[in-house]
Amino acid sequence: MDFTHFNEQKRAKMVDVSHKGYTLRIARAYGEVKLSQEAYTALKEGRVEKGDVLAVAQVAGIMGAKQTPHLIPMCHPLPLESIDIKFEFDDEHNIVKIFSEAKITHKTGIEMEAVTAVSIAALTIYDMCKAIDKSIEIQNIYLLYKEGGKSGTFVKG
Amino acid sequence: MDFTHFNEQKRAKMVDVSHKGYTLRIARAYGEVKLSQEAYTALKEGRVEKGDVLAVAQVAGIMGAKQTPHLIPMCHPLPLESIDIKFEFDDEHNIVKIFSEAKITHKTGIEMEAVTAVSIAALTIYDMCKAIDKSIEIQNIYLLYKEGGKSGTFVKG
Amino acid sequence: MDFTHFNEQKRAKMVDVSHKGYTLRIARAYGEVKLSQEAYTALKEGRVEKGDVLAVAQVAGIMGAKQTPHLIPMCHPLPLESIDIKFEFDDEHNIVKIFSEAKITHKTGIEMEAVTAVSIAALTIYDMCKAIDKSIEIQNIYLLYKEGGKSGTFVKG
Amino acid sequence: MDFTHFNEQKRAKMVDVSHKGYTLRIARAYGEVKLSQEAYTALKEGRVEKGDVLAVAQVAGIMGAKQTPHLIPMCHPLPLESIDIKFEFDDEHNIVKIFSEAKITHKTGIEMEAVTAVSIAALTIYDMCKAIDKSIEIQNIYLLYKEGGKSGTFVKG
Amino acid sequence: MDFTHFNEQKRAKMVDVSHKGYTLRIARAYGEVKLSQEAYTALKEGRVEKGDVLAVAQVAGIMGAKQTPHLIPMCHPLPLESIDIKFEFDDEHNIVKIFSEAKITHKTGIEMEAVTAVSIAALTIYDMCKAIDKSIEIQNIYLLYKEGGKSGTFVKG
Amino acid sequence: MDFTHFNEQKRAKMVDVSHKGYTLRIARAYGEVKLSQEAYTALKEGRVEKGDVLAVAQVAGIMGAKQTPHLIPMCHPLPLESIDIKFEFDDEHNIVKIFSEAKITHKTGIEMEAVTAVSIAALTIYDMCKAIDKSIEIQNIYLLYKEGGKSGTFVKG
Repeated sequence: MDFTHFNEQKRAKMVDVSHKGYTLRIARAYGEVKLSQEAYTALKEGRVEKGDVLAVAQVAGIMGAKQTPHLIPMCHPLPLESIDIKFEFDDEHNIVKIFSEAKITHKTGIEMEAVTAVSIAALTIYDMCKAIDKSIEIQNIYLLYKEGGKSGTFVKG
Repeated sequence: MDFTHFNEQKRAKMVDVSHKGYTLRIARAYGEVKLSQEAYTALKEGRVEKGDVLAVAQVAGIMGAKQTPHLIPMCHPLPLESIDIKFEFDDEHNIVKIFSEAKITHKTGIEMEAVTAVSIAALTIYDMCKAIDKSIEIQNIYLLYKEGGKSGTFVKG
Repeated sequence: MDFTHFNEQKRAKMVDVSHKGYTLRIARAYGEVKLSQEAYTALKEGRVEKGDVLAVAQVAGIMGAKQTPHLIPMCHPLPLESIDIKFEFDDEHNIVKIFSEAKITHKTGIEMEAVTAVSIAALTIYDMCKAIDKSIEIQNIYLLYKEGGKSGTFVKG
Repeated sequence: MDFTHFNEQKRAKMVDVSHKGYTLRIARAYGEVKLSQEAYTALKEGRVEKGDVLAVAQVAGIMGAKQTPHLIPMCHPLPLESIDIKFEFDDEHNIVKIFSEAKITHKTGIEMEAVTAVSIAALTIYDMCKAIDKSIEIQNIYLLYKEGGKSGTFVKG
Repeated sequence: MDFTHFNEQKRAKMVDVSHKGYTLRIARAYGEVKLSQEAYTALKEGRVEKGDVLAVAQVAGIMGAKQTPHLIPMCHPLPLESIDIKFEFDDEHNIVKIFSEAKITHKTGIEMEAVTAVSIAALTIYDMCKAIDKSIEIQNIYLLYKEGGKSGTFVKG
Repeated sequence: MDFTHFNEQKRAKMVDVSHKGYTLRIARAYGEVKLSQEAYTALKEGRVEKGDVLAVAQVAGIMGAKQTPHLIPMCHPLPLESIDIKFEFDDEHNIVKIFSEAKITHKTGIEMEAVTAVSIAALTIYDMCKAIDKSIEIQNIYLLYKEGGKSGTFVKG
């Protein structure tokens, strides 16, 4: 296989999708934020006591998904039709798990919107917890699933 | 320690730094993009043959750093004074390593700008290689180093 | 009735409209800026003598309408097809009345674009007159009318 | 008094502040969202039951404050040093009251950042409640207080 | 012929295209950057030796095309379907020639996206060479070609 | 002389200005829009009769100047302290002449803000007149003058 993002001058272009039809596309992405014990507990308990870090990360992830074409240079601007983010707590490893799902009926996919939503949500958790823990790690960001379009369905193996 | 980003209504705020002095601040961040053998080879060789994915990722990371306060809700808008990104190839593991460094002389730090630069550069590599490999993972994003400000110097242990 | 903007984790999401059809939607909004006698006269006469505050507010309102999905977190990004703003003077009460109309043929409405256009136009009038009058008030912003979509036609009672 | 925002061609300009010194500036603004009984109750109780509309409005208002110079044409871009938003419930009139406070030590004021924060928070409440109530009104937006700079302290009379 | 961008109050509006059908539209634009001998040689040779100015200009032009509706007040926001930029060297006159091509199947044209792509690419070349040559000129920016839509095909004479 | 915008990997960076002092900087730029006789007359007379194209171009140019660091990849984000735009009519050649002036007291210059202001104003004139004349040309954009900073004063020869 080959890169699709370069022109004959070996410089980047936005791939031409003008001839393609509209199909429903769904993308799901995943990522993790690994915290110290102290920061993890503060984040998890803080929801009730101090304030909800994840409420801010949720909004940031959704707004970040809408900024995808202005952040990732070769992404197509698309009228995103659905974006949601969910969180799970892994108490054993002090990890916040982030799941996103994006949908559109359009000429090209929204994988990058889903992955960007997770990344910006993760960065926001990082930002709001870094006063407590500067060793936070963002890890294991990837596409979980996609359907729709010429390349068909993908499920992370 | 405690969260600094919440007000007495338990909702998020931008931390008040109006009373602080200007000090030089430096932040360095790190992250990795793990590719399949095929995508890794295409990216590495493509620089000469097809087009330079990392040249696009470099620009995206730098522009992304400047978008940090518009992506991360509680970040202060700051007139960033320096941002650079470098890449290293880990041929054994098919990994592109991303290093960023940001500088400013201001009232608050630019850790988030450094980490965001790495994240957006990683997402751009992901985007430009995903036609070849949908299993790409972004991993191990963290702050390597910071200096300046009240909390002093931090070196990732 | 119930909120449509929350997921089962009680956090905000962008409502899924991927399954909906395209219909013509029109939204009209209204708002007022109440000025002191001095500022009102300066604004109204200034159009000829000094410069046209409302020409700037007009451009700001139209550009603000296009920023709606990047300002209002759960708004869908939409390729807006028409936006216009008109002003009326109420000499008796020193009020500038602002009217907007937005149109699109899409899966969801553009009420927020119409209301945002009015709000940003009002804020711009505020900004440009505040050297004369710091007591300016923005008031009575609401949706006048909408048509199209499942919820049908609405006329402000 | 006279407009400061026009040049000798009677067209708008950004006022020249290059010669001014840095002083601490604080601005506080206010605004209201008036809801139907049903929407008001849903919003107020929803915080516990369904999801917190005001948590989203809080983030939107803070991010909106940072967009002020890109929304209001003649506003100076400024590295905002503090922004916070608070809400009060007026059960008698079904009104959510919004209070903002912004701070900076710079050459010009941040009144518009404070007023914009209130406006965007109000628009977000509007957006998230409009499925229940299309008659919502945004009202009584004004500057409560400012200090700092040549024009001194202002308190809304 | 007459201006289409003004309402009956003689103020600007976004032209209403809500009633129009979708047709394929293509636009091509052109522009030049004229450099001193020294800057021209540095740019052309620098591609191999120091770094590739045009790789940065390429990314900037493509991202700039996507910002068109947020830069040009009366432009419609559109989900751009293709954008590419190419460069040619005119050694005799020390000129970098810039060519862009944009495509969409929509209700209105993307001439402004094509012309904006060229302009932002030109400004980026300017920025990156201005340390060597402050006399750089951007010149001869125009539409080369457009097809699609009611006004039909245009070829620069 | 040499490029300052590349790192040792031959990729672009934002030049480090963290060690520099604050000095007053002024930049003036120039550009032209050449119109057909018909479009030129419509624009010039339209100011009174139909609507003022240049009022829109003025606002676009000023807002565009503030977007400079988000358009030109290696530009520093700066709190611009003054920006103004003026127009002159050249009736003999059907040309609108655009002049901008930007000011800041900071660590680096604002040449790009001045040149970008002219470019975006020119593109806006283009957009609003293109229904009448598709052969419009934007030409002769350059820096007229700069002062301040290590490289001293420049006057276009």
